[in-house]
Amino acid sequence: MRVLLTGSAGFIGSHLTEYFLDAGHQVIGVDNYLSGQRQNTERFLAHPCFEFIEADVSAGLPSVQEKLDWVLHFASPASPPHYQQFPVETLMVGAQGTQNGLELARQHGAKFFLASTSEVYGDPLVHPQPESYWGHVNPNGVRSCYDEAKRYAEAITLAYHRHHALDIRVIRIFNTYGPRMRADDGRVVTNFVSQALAGIPLTVYGDGLQTRSFQYVDDLVEGIVRLMNVTHHTPVNLGNPDEYTVLDFARIIRDRIDPALPIVHESVPADDPRQRKPDISLAKQLLGWEPQIGLERGLELTIQSFQQHAKLSEPPRPAEHWSPL
Amino acid sequence: MRVLLTGSAGFIGSHLTEYFLDAGHQVIGVDNYLSGQRQNTERFLAHPCFEFIEADVSAGLPSVQEKLDWVLHFASPASPPHYQQFPVETLMVGAQGTQNGLELARQHGAKFFLASTSEVYGDPLVHPQPESYWGHVNPNGVRSCYDEAKRYAEAITLAYHRHHALDIRVIRIFNTYGPRMRADDGRVVTNFVSQALAGIPLTVYGDGLQTRSFQYVDDLVEGIVRLMNVTHHTPVNLGNPDEYTVLDFARIIRDRIDPALPIVHESVPADDPRQRKPDISLAKQLLGWEPQIGLERGLELTIQSFQQHAKLSEPPRPAEHWSPL
Repeated sequence: MRVLLTGSAGFIGSHLTEYFLDAGHQVIGVDNYLSGQRQNTERFLAHPCFEFIEADVSAGLPSVQEKLDWVLHFASPASPPHYQQFPVETLMVGAQGTQNGLELARQHGAKFFLASTSEVYGDPLVHPQPESYWGHVNPNGVRSCYDEAKRYAEAITLAYHRHHALDIRVIRIFNTYGPRMRADDGRVVTNFVSQALAGIPLTVYGDGLQTRSFQYVDDLVEGIVRLMNVTHHTPVNLGNPDEYTVLDFARIIRDRIDPALPIVHESVPADDPRQRKPDISLAKQLLGWEPQIGLERGLELTIQSFQQHAKLSEPPRPAEHWSPL
Repeated sequence: MRVLLTGSAGFIGSHLTEYFLDAGHQVIGVDNYLSGQRQNTERFLAHPCFEFIEADVSAGLPSVQEKLDWVLHFASPASPPHYQQFPVETLMVGAQGTQNGLELARQHGAKFFLASTSEVYGDPLVHPQPESYWGHVNPNGVRSCYDEAKRYAEAITLAYHRHHALDIRVIRIFNTYGPRMRADDGRVVTNFVSQALAGIPLTVYGDGLQTRSFQYVDDLVEGIVRLMNVTHHTPVNLGNPDEYTVLDFARIIRDRIDPALPIVHESVPADDPRQRKPDISLAKQLLGWEPQIGLERGLELTIQSFQQHAKLSEPPRPAEHWSPL
């Protein structure tokens, strides 16, 4: 089959590209490198089944001659420092970008796959979060450029399904980590790993008792592929329900790399969720899916990758990124 | 001053146009008549300070030579039958339409005024609803094309304020009624008045014990004008906190027109809010504003207007409009 994948140069996009190529499919990747990385394109450019188009999917998707089977929309800044640096672009890729993907899928009679996010649950009042939970999102806060863009993306995707009978899939991706994350993306895992490898203190925002659940990227890819192979049109959570406090998480990473490093606390950013944990009952029942890679193994693979590939001479200073705009 | 008003042919747009012209201002109205009415343009066409441009604000706003002081974005289908008939257009006028208005305001160094809605609160779990309440909205339901479009519109308006220092105003309009509503808009007031004037039974959805608060349009216009004259960048509720059950409301209207008419019940539409009542503390304190026109007087003016103007030969059959898509 042939898929067009927006955000192919992103962290998750690059792993999906690799999966599809390994499985013998044709991949047309699209990215504008707003937050994607060129090395995620370069690693596939020699592959005969990979084609790349540098384009801003919010401005329009290139016309494709060959028949597409899927349009997968994974393009968006996804980490708070990135989307708060580019709030309007983030809003646009959720609205115009999603609609451009939906229209391309309609033209080709292709299926459409939306990468939504656990951020649609906001700072949830229900724990863990099932797909039926409507969320608790501040529509005007500094995170709203991402959260509301993704809620809008879901709404327009469902509208195309209801109104144009488009065959759609929607996933809500919970925190995911693994090789090829940007060292400067400001996320918990990359911050802690980068800081620890650089031998500087690990930065925890607030008391660190807020919880997160971390999914290794290979588990996510497996869930995506399984969902492509069933017919289901409402959102499906994909995440790892193993829950850790951010402080525990800092300690685990610190102790793996350099137990002598201190952990320092900085003020908590606006609207930072206190808890986030997926209810994955639907994915279990629908896809026979659940995460297979535990935190110890996943961190081992991630730290190895960072040690091999990341340029660690300039560790990120996420506190600056986080200041409210 | 000179204002550009999108949705000028809509119910609220037409009253705003009238206010601005009466106050000696220049008005450039824009509408594509998706849900607006041509008679709302025609009534002002002879006025020397009124100009009208027929355009879809989602596709782009016309360039304007004269310096604009305000861009007011009031364009959108706003009643459930209309937005559920045009879900994609409704989503687009919230995203692309709002952004086109923001960009036009930037070009002119003008201020931007967003008409948002109490629908951003969804089916609220807090009662009455203050502006600080984050809402309870189903991002995938049949109403999400409107609710999520308006939440997105707020988010991108705030993003332009934070990122581009645009001077903005945002109001959340609660149920509003008055002359020039479309007889077929499927709203509670127009349904009941049209049905009673046509001598047919009044249709109540569900048990009728869900509550609504109804604001007469002149009070809303007064609130809008007062907000234009202060500097305040976060959303402000404008609505009438006097709360009635829908059933009481049906009885009041029925008894005014023909007490012999029966009230019939039909099944309740999906995600219909149980309660909706504004907390207007902020508008009181900020604007010295509160509604002045009670339900008796407002209904008298509305029914008179419907008797004079509405074509009542074909009363609406809202139950058909309401079926989930």
